[in-house]
Amino acid sequence: MIISYCDIILPKLAQSVRKNGGVNMSELRKDPISGRWVIISVERGKRPTDFVSPSQRKKGGFCPFCPGNEYTTPEEIITFRPSDTKPNSPGWTLRVMPNKFPALQIYGDLSKTGEGIFDKMSGIGAHEVIVETPDHMLSLSTMSLKAVEDVLWAYYLRLTDLRKDRRFKYVLIFKNEGDAAGASLEHSHTQLIALPIIPKLVKEETDSSRSYYDLKERCIFCDVINQEIETRKRVIYENSRYVAIAPFAPRAPFETWILPKKHASNFSPPDNNFSQLAEILQVILKQMDKILDIPPYNFVIHTSPFYDEINDYYHWHIELMPKLTKIAGFEWGSGFYINPTPPEESAKFMREAKI
Amino acid sequence: MIISYCDIILPKLAQSVRKNGGVNMSELRKDPISGRWVIISVERGKRPTDFVSPSQRKKGGFCPFCPGNEYTTPEEIITFRPSDTKPNSPGWTLRVMPNKFPALQIYGDLSKTGEGIFDKMSGIGAHEVIVETPDHMLSLSTMSLKAVEDVLWAYYLRLTDLRKDRRFKYVLIFKNEGDAAGASLEHSHTQLIALPIIPKLVKEETDSSRSYYDLKERCIFCDVINQEIETRKRVIYENSRYVAIAPFAPRAPFETWILPKKHASNFSPPDNNFSQLAEILQVILKQMDKILDIPPYNFVIHTSPFYDEINDYYHWHIELMPKLTKIAGFEWGSGFYINPTPPEESAKFMREAKI
Repeated sequence: MIISYCDIILPKLAQSVRKNGGVNMSELRKDPISGRWVIISVERGKRPTDFVSPSQRKKGGFCPFCPGNEYTTPEEIITFRPSDTKPNSPGWTLRVMPNKFPALQIYGDLSKTGEGIFDKMSGIGAHEVIVETPDHMLSLSTMSLKAVEDVLWAYYLRLTDLRKDRRFKYVLIFKNEGDAAGASLEHSHTQLIALPIIPKLVKEETDSSRSYYDLKERCIFCDVINQEIETRKRVIYENSRYVAIAPFAPRAPFETWILPKKHASNFSPPDNNFSQLAEILQVILKQMDKILDIPPYNFVIHTSPFYDEINDYYHWHIELMPKLTKIAGFEWGSGFYINPTPPEESAKFMREAKI
Repeated sequence: MIISYCDIILPKLAQSVRKNGGVNMSELRKDPISGRWVIISVERGKRPTDFVSPSQRKKGGFCPFCPGNEYTTPEEIITFRPSDTKPNSPGWTLRVMPNKFPALQIYGDLSKTGEGIFDKMSGIGAHEVIVETPDHMLSLSTMSLKAVEDVLWAYYLRLTDLRKDRRFKYVLIFKNEGDAAGASLEHSHTQLIALPIIPKLVKEETDSSRSYYDLKERCIFCDVINQEIETRKRVIYENSRYVAIAPFAPRAPFETWILPKKHASNFSPPDNNFSQLAEILQVILKQMDKILDIPPYNFVIHTSPFYDEINDYYHWHIELMPKLTKIAGFEWGSGFYINPTPPEESAKFMREAKI
C-alpha cells in the first residue's frame, strides 16, 4: 500500500496516537523466507471498516498544499522562496516538509530485535513531501521546465542532507500521480522515505550489477544503453545527457526508464545542472499524457545505496510506470508479469506522439 | 497485469491474429538486471486506446461460463459431470478448458534465443480456466463444501497432467475474485498457467528454504508454523491438517497464508482427501467476506517446482490477499511495502468474525 500525505484512512486514530505522547509504534519486519522487509505502520488506519473503497472517499475543496494553508502542515524543511517572504507562509515556489502521517518516525534510536525466528527493527526513518508547485492545477508535465529543474534540485538537496544521518542506508524517492496511482491529494507532489534498510529491488539490482561487473569489468546498464542506442528499437527519446527507453522486459504497458548516457552510479547533477534531466522527464510525461490521456502513474528513482555511492557497477535511473491496469495482488503472489504491449511498439507510440 | 479469460481489451485484434493462422507471437523475456521474466503477450490488447479505464467497460448480461453457453468457449479438458450428459453441454458441476485468449501457446517447441545482451524464449505454455460452479451467483465462500473440494481436485488433476509435459517447469494456480482484483468475468473461476520457467518469487522461496535446510536440517516453514502455533498471536484458524496465519511481515492488510501443519512440499491431497483444505479455505473466505464486506481478492498456490517436487526443505502453501487498496506501481518499483495493519490485529479481527 502506498502512503501519501494525508490518507483519508483514520486520521482521527492517527491524531489520537499523536496526542498520546506521539508514540511511534511503527516497525520494520522481515519475512524470513523471502527476505523482504515491510513497514508495519500504525500511524495509519487499520480496522476493517477503514478500508472504504476509493470511490466512496470524498474530496473536499480544501488543499493543505496550496499557498495560504501552510499552517495545516508540519513546518517546512526547505523551501524555494523569495528572501522577502516568511517561512511557512505564501510566496514559495517549492516546499519540502515532513509527512503529516509518517510511515516512519525520525526520532529515536535504531533498535534491532528478534522474535523467535523473526527479525524486526524499530520504525526509524524520515518521510517527507516535496510540494512541486504552488499552483494546484499544474503537474510535472505542464509546469515550466525551470520548475521541473527545481523539483530535481529539491530531491538532490534532501538526499545530500539525509545522507549525513548514519542511521539511514537508503533514500527512496517516489511519485504517485493521480488517484489510481495512490495519490490521495491532487496537488502535484513527490515523496521520499529515508530507510535503515535497502529496498529489495534496489538490493537485487546492485547485487546483480556487481556480479556482472566482476565478470566483465563493465556496467550492465551501460551495456544495455549502448545496445539500445545502436538498435534504436526501444529508444523513446534522448538528449545530450540522457536516454529514455522502453525496457526489453517491461512489467507493464508503457513502462519507461530514463538513464544517464554517461556512467553515473548515484543521482546527482552533472556539471551542477539538471536542465537536461528536467527536459527528458517532461518530454516523456507529455508523451504519456498525449497518447494515454493523462494517465495516473508512479515513478521511483533507483540510485546507489549510501554505503557505496560512487562506483563503477551501478547506474542510477528513473523507472516510470503509467497505471493502466488495476491489478496488483497476483504479481505480489508470484513475481510474474504478463504484458500485452511489446516495448518496441510502446516506444514507437511514444516517439510518434505529437507533444 | 493479470490476464483473464475474456479481457475486454481488443478481442477483435486477438481474433484477427487467430484468423491469420493462429500465429502465436508471445515471448518470454528476461530482464538482465533483476533476472525477472515477463510474458509479452500479443494475443491481448496493446494500442494506447485499448487501455480504457475499468469503469468505462461495460458488462453485458452474457456469461460464457454459464451452462448453455459452452459453445462459446474452447473445448473442455476435464469436467465433473454425470455420465449421461454430453461433453461441452450443460449438466456439469465443474469445467476446465483452455483460456480463449491465452497468454502462452500450448503448441510448439521451446526455443531459447539471445538478442545481444538480452535473453528470450518462445511463449510456450498452457493457460487454462477452471470454472468452479455452474451457478453464476455462487463463489468459493458460498458454494457447498463438496464443491470447494472438487475445485481443489481439479487443481490437483491438472497439475498431475501438466507435469508430464517436459517443457514445463512450473504450474502457477491463481484466482482473481472481483473486478478490482482483475477478474473480468464475474462467474467464479480459477486460472492456471504452465510455464517453462519458475516464477521469481517461487524461486526465491525455494532457494531460501534450501539454504535454511542446509544450515539447520529443518524446513523453515515448519519452524514458522511451530512458532506461530505456540504463540497463537497470528493464528487465524486451524483444523486437524491445516493452519491459517497472518504472516509476520505481511505485504498488505489481511494477507493470509494457509499451510499444511505436517510437512508437505507439493500441493497434493493427504490420504486422498481435500476435505480439510476445502474447509479451512472456505472459513477464511467467509471471515474475509464478513469483516471486509465481500472484498475482491487474489490467491496463488506456491508449490515445489516439478524438478524437485518431493523434498524436505520446501512447504507448499496458499497466499491470499484481499485487494483493499488500489496501489501497485510503487511496490513494482521498489519491492518495498507499507502496511497499516499489524498482522496480530488482522488475525484477531478474522478470528472474531461471526461467520
